[in-house]
Amino acid sequence: MLKSAAHQVAGHQATESQLGPVVDGHGLFYKPFQNNNRGSDEANFYFSLYSNPEIPKQILSFFPLFHGTKFLPASDGSGPQIHLAMEDLTFHLNRPSVLDLKIGSRTWFPKASEDYFRKCLSKDRETTTASLGFRVSGFQVFWGEELGFWKPDRDWVRGLTVIGAKMALERFVSSNCSDLDAKPDCKFAGSVYGGENGVLKKLLDLKAWFEEQVIYHFYSASVLIMYERDGVNGGIVKLIDFAHVIDGEGVIDHNFLGGLCSLIKCVSNILAASKENVNSDIGSKRI
Amino acid sequence: MLKSAAHQVAGHQATESQLGPVVDGHGLFYKPFQNNNRGSDEANFYFSLYSNPEIPKQILSFFPLFHGTKFLPASDGSGPQIHLAMEDLTFHLNRPSVLDLKIGSRTWFPKASEDYFRKCLSKDRETTTASLGFRVSGFQVFWGEELGFWKPDRDWVRGLTVIGAKMALERFVSSNCSDLDAKPDCKFAGSVYGGENGVLKKLLDLKAWFEEQVIYHFYSASVLIMYERDGVNGGIVKLIDFAHVIDGEGVIDHNFLGGLCSLIKCVSNILAASKENVNSDIGSKRI
Repeated sequence: MLKSAAHQVAGHQATESQLGPVVDGHGLFYKPFQNNNRGSDEANFYFSLYSNPEIPKQILSFFPLFHGTKFLPASDGSGPQIHLAMEDLTFHLNRPSVLDLKIGSRTWFPKASEDYFRKCLSKDRETTTASLGFRVSGFQVFWGEELGFWKPDRDWVRGLTVIGAKMALERFVSSNCSDLDAKPDCKFAGSVYGGENGVLKKLLDLKAWFEEQVIYHFYSASVLIMYERDGVNGGIVKLIDFAHVIDGEGVIDHNFLGGLCSLIKCVSNILAASKENVNSDIGSKRI
Repeated sequence: MLKSAAHQVAGHQATESQLGPVVDGHGLFYKPFQNNNRGSDEANFYFSLYSNPEIPKQILSFFPLFHGTKFLPASDGSGPQIHLAMEDLTFHLNRPSVLDLKIGSRTWFPKASEDYFRKCLSKDRETTTASLGFRVSGFQVFWGEELGFWKPDRDWVRGLTVIGAKMALERFVSSNCSDLDAKPDCKFAGSVYGGENGVLKKLLDLKAWFEEQVIYHFYSASVLIMYERDGVNGGIVKLIDFAHVIDGEGVIDHNFLGGLCSLIKCVSNILAASKENVNSDIGSKRI
């Protein structure tokens, strides 16, 4: 029984009238091939990734497991379609909060067609891609048993300014995030972003690899951050969306790396501020 | 007695028919104000830099000393002109080899005018700016007593590909760089790029600052690398050209940082390869 991916936060959602990714309920996520070779390019990226002995094992763990390609009925009923078969990253999670961040200060690659280049460039300038080095492209936060999930619509996400994107990173780890007028309390910042299993540590591991690796350039790829509010202990960091990965040709991916460093700085700031708050709470209790 | 700056490698050279920077022979370098507010913007950047207590002292040493502005006869005889008065970075050097690298994968800033944006964008795509994260914008190498300096013309520099730019970094530290068909021997790589006083160490210090600082974004600025072939011991690294420095608004300069990391990787690779060569030389001598 295939069904629409419930915790997908960016890209086209599968409906009866729209082709989109589906999950099988047993741990697999099927993503229909995108047009203009993007589907096969993404499959080829995975094949290359797993056959390249230069990719360190701990780096491979940032990527969803890949299970090849498979013909399946399309979600919109338009007949059999080829899909990428991948690990369903949210399969073991009950009520995941999910943040999809498209990394880089540009999404076009040097040899892109003039049309694609112009489309990307104008989106990059309209969003925080050019200014912040990344943009939020999907967002879902679990607000609690009664309120359920908050999953803002695409226009809200696309309209985020630099300040809004930074605040999204705060809301993502706040217990009062359902109050959109309140200052996010960042209550879960320490447990999600900080510590040995935290998001920051994982982003720094990724950064170390990006400072060295000259194999791939990741255009329009995302860092996906996830955590569960119950018994939260660290966060999950994955890389997704590889339809525009190109050969690094001996040069580091300065575009992805720069954006990743900007994200790291934002997360570090939130973590530092939340530590100060904790300390000042303790201080005021003592008085 | 003002005269044209002999070791200037990028930008307009002062001649009788062209306005350009001059030096006073006593350690000062005068740069005529550029049009469209660029001159006053650059002066304002220096004022801001020196009055900002958040800039660490060791970072200030990467910038030329600034001595304010001064009206001087223009180099082209067109009457008094306002100039920036700065430290002449080559004053204490006899025969400096000089490399001017414009850092970043784009040279336009988010609020640039449409005209300026288009001009920058097309240059960024034609040169190695977009692909490599930096471009060579000036180059001078001392070839030795008899051959003197090699200072390729602007077209040669502008036409460099990624491979050409990397090779320029090799030629810059090679004893056989006058033979343009030969593989650069990178004889001076260890002494210029390596070690405690080396270029790599200084670039890494800069990088550490750029990972943290959210005060300035440096668009179209350059890293200037210099050394003297006689008694070479390390290299000089400076930042120059601040007509397009804008407020960081709480975001790191991911554009400059990404390009800087790409440069660091290129320099590290040259250094690593030259160490291997030294080791294999020693090895072969043993046999």
